[in-house]
This record gives sequence, structure tokens and C-alpha cells, in this order.
Amino acid sequence: MRVAILGYGTVGSNVAKVLIENEKIIKARCGQSITPVIALARHAKKDALIPITSDINEILNFKDIDVFVELMGGIELPFQIISGLLKRKKNVVTANKALLAYHRYELETLAKDLAFGYEASVAGGIPIIKVLKEGLSANNIINIKGILNGTCNYILTCMQQVGMDFHNALQKAQELGYAEADPSFDIEGQDAAHKLLILASLAYNLDIKPEDILTQGIKDISSEDMYFANEFDFTIKLLGIAKLKDSNIELRVHPTMISKNKMLSKVDGVMNAISIVGDVLGESLYYGAGAGGLATASAVVADLIDIAKGNFKTPMLGFKEKLEFNLLKPEEIYTKYYLRIKVEDKLGVLSKITLLMSQNLISIESFLQKPKKNNENYTTIFFTTHFTYEKSIQNLLRILKKQEFVKDEPFMMRIED
Amino acid sequence: MRVAILGYGTVGSNVAKVLIENEKIIKARCGQSITPVIALARHAKKDALIPITSDINEILNFKDIDVFVELMGGIELPFQIISGLLKRKKNVVTANKALLAYHRYELETLAKDLAFGYEASVAGGIPIIKVLKEGLSANNIINIKGILNGTCNYILTCMQQVGMDFHNALQKAQELGYAEADPSFDIEGQDAAHKLLILASLAYNLDIKPEDILTQGIKDISSEDMYFANEFDFTIKLLGIAKLKDSNIELRVHPTMISKNKMLSKVDGVMNAISIVGDVLGESLYYGAGAGGLATASAVVADLIDIAKGNFKTPMLGFKEKLEFNLLKPEEIYTKYYLRIKVEDKLGVLSKITLLMSQNLISIESFLQKPKKNNENYTTIFFTTHFTYEKSIQNLLRILKKQEFVKDEPFMMRIED
Repeated sequence: MRVAILGYGTVGSNVAKVLIENEKIIKARCGQSITPVIALARHAKKDALIPITSDINEILNFKDIDVFVELMGGIELPFQIISGLLKRKKNVVTANKALLAYHRYELETLAKDLAFGYEASVAGGIPIIKVLKEGLSANNIINIKGILNGTCNYILTCMQQVGMDFHNALQKAQELGYAEADPSFDIEGQDAAHKLLILASLAYNLDIKPEDILTQGIKDISSEDMYFANEFDFTIKLLGIAKLKDSNIELRVHPTMISKNKMLSKVDGVMNAISIVGDVLGESLYYGAGAGGLATASAVVADLIDIAKGNFKTPMLGFKEKLEFNLLKPEEIYTKYYLRIKVEDKLGVLSKITLLMSQNLISIESFLQKPKKNNENYTTIFFTTHFTYEKSIQNLLRILKKQEFVKDEPFMMRIED
Repeated sequence: MRVAILGYGTVGSNVAKVLIENEKIIKARCGQSITPVIALARHAKKDALIPITSDINEILNFKDIDVFVELMGGIELPFQIISGLLKRKKNVVTANKALLAYHRYELETLAKDLAFGYEASVAGGIPIIKVLKEGLSANNIINIKGILNGTCNYILTCMQQVGMDFHNALQKAQELGYAEADPSFDIEGQDAAHKLLILASLAYNLDIKPEDILTQGIKDISSEDMYFANEFDFTIKLLGIAKLKDSNIELRVHPTMISKNKMLSKVDGVMNAISIVGDVLGESLYYGAGAGGLATASAVVADLIDIAKGNFKTPMLGFKEKLEFNLLKPEEIYTKYYLRIKVEDKLGVLSKITLLMSQNLISIESFLQKPKKNNENYTTIFFTTHFTYEKSIQNLLRILKKQEFVKDEPFMMRIED
């Protein structure tokens, strides 16, 4: 089987490396050699393992290519290229989550009986696409909760375990190459939202856009939140959450307080993990490296081996017939909440806040106020609530912001215990 | 697709239940209905969801059955039955790990281009067979470490976290239905050895028998071992371990001290988990319910859906061409060890023991002796060693047993940190 690699960066070069160095096990698995014959790169690469061209037309029309691997990044250009390839009956493998977040259904429709693999698009080398498409296929998926962004998980681990503040943790992540120079796509949650959307499509056949997902990043998390989490046995993780409620789906990406006894709370550093609850199996969890050239190559090459075996009969994101689910509006989210409110330290404030909470039908589950260590006129109070509606919490936050005794914007985090 | 179920116990009845209750999602996944039409049971079942027969010939020759699901248990009888079915070109799904531990290669040879599914044979509903066959197919598997027996994991969790002794923990497991009346198959490690063997075959194409695996159970673990583990930040787990060393494979099932910071050490109660290190991906881990009617049915039905999709092109335990690996002899195992030795509390004993250790080229990594709390003449000393050969440890244990100052048999546990 002859493969062309569109994009010879960290992932592309590792795909070539794995195909060459692990030829023996790959051939044993699928009964044939999988040969990377040419790669596309803007510039010549020193020490490239295979011939490189910078001419897109040359590679698209290269002789006898069975599978094209798209690792270029971007959205519209790879969409045009892959559409063209599928129309010409060429198999395609991609690791491009942004592309899938916007064009997965159009591409799967074009792919039909061709192979269109994207195992590498979510959670790097963890075979989570296969797990949802095939491994858990007997289950109605009750929920998915995923640590899908290693950058955020690394930063949050530094903050909670080492006591760094957000900016120091981000800087350390950048020094180690775990965060980009412009980290906004990761820390604002968009990257995780793209991945969550792909997983939710595999679970619920959900054809929506990333913009439809409630998405909140991690940059407003403070050392005080970490203090509270440690005191109350929570770990703070950026989670992508999909939940089935009747025939509606709740989809959201946000920093989340989760109980320390959950397996997800034990996933540290740059690692990814996805917990899936099915109605038949109950909870299962999948853990591993979510990024990096080799981990991503592991998934790309697994797709190539499946193609070589003829093992690719799951079009339309794992569904042969359509399921109908609706996306729940954000205000209808029903969960538990954490609140951090900085207030004037004076008579009657707590009474006013708790009255506002009860007027909004928000019931308090736990409460913390520390004695002040300085002479400020302000103190920070912390609440967790029983289950309530997002609408009620948003309403409370709006009202709190207007109170003269509230300093700074009150901060809210959702809880999954 | 019409399915016959051979064996209508906890798993069989749940397979029927899932096929009926989750018909909508199953049909959406594979484009057709999967209908359980008849089941085999010794006696009529009240409230059975599908017709029952006690006549094996009736069910084997039932009209238009596409797939037979074997859930009878035993080894030779199901082997004969499945062989007969495969020769008649019938697809088969089984959850029978003992059958696979002895006859997997013969059955896969017979299956050839037919579907022969056994996702349910290891770790219940965790799709670990698919992960090894397909998800990690680009990797040379460096090692597999699995918590494969929920009964043992439940008992060990009770011992380490609640402080129960082995017999009380076993009794509690029996009361809760987690252990059989005769628990020996679980607690002596054979069940885990069968499962490890199936995983090792999928990783290394290894055609050996369960008896070839070094297997040690959990019944000699004492409260003192748990005390030491807690003091030195270890968790004690029964692990099935497969390791690649050059072209040799180390295979072993035994209670193991693992560092508390490893994900595997965080797997409590009846849950199963398998950590796999691949040369491309690094470590990934798979966690979930390893037993129970519904969890097992989740895997059986996933196989049925794959068959309905025509997604079953991975014969010979995931290999199309043979790989050659040799099983390493137990005495060549090279790892770290924990030793508990009960000795007379008198002058010169420690010096004698440490001399014996150095004579056997065993280097000490840590050491613990507690002040005695009673007037016994004996005290217990604990060691952990640096990496050494199993042969050296076994030799040391033989010599120690003969010393007049050693009371009771010295106890050894292997360490994976």
C-alpha cells in the first residue's frame, strides 16, 4: 500500500518514521507493507526519510497512491483538497480536528465506501474514535467527560499541585513546549470544543458547529479556587462534557470541579483521558498521550493498517442510520456549581447574598469563608450549590455584579462529582 | 441478523436484553436489526425474553442463524461445538476465556474468513481486544500490565484501605457476590493468567498454554505487607504482566507492589484496568467493569454489531503473518523485589541475612524493621531490592528457609515501580 503524506512537520515525519521503523509489526498485522512514498512540505527537509515535494499538484497526482494522509492544518484548504481526493476515489486519513469540527458530515458523505480515517483527531494516540464507533456500539452513551487538552491539564496540574498561579504555569508550559507562543486556542477551550464535538458526533450523530458549544477557558481560575478545591477534595480540570438527557444533548467545555476520588481527577500533566458512561457497560475510561508527534502517528498508522486490512466499514461517524438528537440550550444545563465572590467585609452581606440565592432557587451545599490575613476591607466567600439550572446561576451572577458590596466579577465553576 | 445464544445465564440473558432494549441504537450503528431468536438452557427460564430450548441439536440446527453466541462455560464441550459451527461456516462469538486460553489458535484457524469474536473474554466490557488488535496496531508492545481479576482487586482494596485481613476480605467479597463459594480459580491467579495469555497472544502472537505462565495468587499477603506498602507508598495489586525483552516475552501473574503515583494503583474495588506501553504511543490505560452480566453483554453485542457491519477481517489474534517470540523462563525474570522475613530477634541475624543477599548479588534498596510491640522472640524485617534476577531471589529464599533463625516461610513479592 502506497501512502502520500501532505504535511511533513512533527506528525508527518513521525508517520514516515513509524511506517519505516515498525515495518515488521505493521506487515505482520495487515499482511502487506505500507510504504510512505512522498511527502508535501513547503521547504526541502534535511534528513527527510522520504522524498519531499513542495508542489501540491505533483503529490496529488503522484503515481499509484492508495492513501493520502492530510497533516497540513487549516480548514478550508484541506477541505478542498480532501474533497477532491475523495471524489477521485482516493482513501484519506487525517489528524485535523478543526477540519472535522466543521466539515465531518460533508466529508463522510463524500467518502461513502472509501476509507476516511481520523483516529488521530481526538486525544492523540488513544484509540477513542474506535472505542466510540465500535467498542461501545451496544451502548446508548449516557455521558462523555474528557480531559482533551494537554496544555490546559498541564497548567492546572501546576496550579493545583505546585501552587503556581495561572501566568507562571502558562509560562512554564510554554518553556517546555506544551503551550504555543499564542496559547489562546488551547486555554480558551476551543481546541477541546473541537474534539468534544467529534466525540459527540460519534455518540449522538450530532451535526452542529463548534460555535454552538458552551465554551469557557481556564484563565480566570485563581489560587483561591485551587485552595478551595484542595480543602473540599476537588480537582479542577478543563473538561469537555457531553450528556444525554431524554433526547437532548448537553455539550459544554469548561473548567470543572471534580471529586478527588474519580479516576479523571487523577490524570495529571499533559496526559489526556476520556470517561464514557454507557447504559450497558457503565463507566469506562481511556487514558494516554493526547498530543505529540509519535502519539499522533500511532493513531494515523493504526488507521492505515485498518485500511490495508479492509477494515473500514463505518461511515457517517459510526452510524448507518440517522439518529435525531437536539442540542440543549446552555441555560437549560442542570448541574452543581461553585461560586467565588469577593465582597465587602461588613454586616449583612452574607445574609443578602444567601437571600439572593434562595430567591433564585439556588440551594447551598457547602460554604467557606476564611479569616482575613490582611487589612483589606474585602473578603472572599465560597459556595457550592445543590443541582440547579444554569439560567438561575447566570441570573444570580448578573444580580450580584450590580451589588455595591461585591468587588470584582463573581467567578463560577461547574461541578461534576 | 439472527442470533442463537448457547447458555442463558447472567450473561446470556443480558445479551438478549441488550439486543432487545437497545435495538434502536444497534440498528443505527449497523444498519440492520440483530435479533436473538433462541437460547439454550438446561431448564426452562421464567420470564425469559426469547424462546428457550434444552436441546443442543435443536439450537445448532435452528433455521437461518447467522451468529452463534457461546456462553456455556467449560472447555472441551464448547470447543467441539464451536469447531463444528465454524466448519459449517457459521459465525461465532464467545466470552469463554478458558476456551481461548487453550484453543484460540485452532479456532482462529478454523474461522479463517468467518467472524470469530471474543471481545468479552478479557476485562468484560472494556474493548481491550480491539485496542490491541487494531487501536495500537502501529506499536511494538513493550509491556502490558493488567488488573484482570475483579475479585482479587476487591479483596486487596479491602485489605489495603480498610485494614481487613485476607480471610475477612474474601468473606466480604463472597457476601457481596464478588467471589465464588470456591474462590480458588480467582484468588490463585488462574483466571488472570487465562486473560493475560489472550492479551499476550494479541500482542506477540504467542502460542503457549496457561500452565507455562508463572502464576502466584494473593492468599499469602498479610497485614504486615499492607503496612509496609502504605509506609513506602506502594499499592498491592494482582497484576498480569507481559514484557518484551529482545525477542523474548516475560509472562507472569502475581501480587505486585506498584508505586502509588501510577494510574494502575488508583484502580479500586472490582474494577479492571490494563496499562499498555507501546514503542510509538508510550503508555495508555483502559479502565472499566471487568465482569458482570451487563458489562460482558456490552462486549458480546459490540462483536455482533461488528459482524453485522462486515467489520471482521483480523484473523489469527490480530496477525496476518506470524511473529516469532519465545517465552522467557521464569528464573530469567529481572525485576525488583520485596521481602518479608520473620526472624529471631537476636545478635547478628541482620548481618547474616544481608551477607546472604550480597552473596546472591542482591542489592538492597530499602529496609524496615519496626520495634516489637510484644514479648515474642521474633521480629519481622522488610527489604526491597534493586533489580535482580528471579533465580537469585529464589536461591536466597531456599537458603533463608534453612536458617534456624528464620521462622515461617519468608515471603516475596515482585515490584513494578
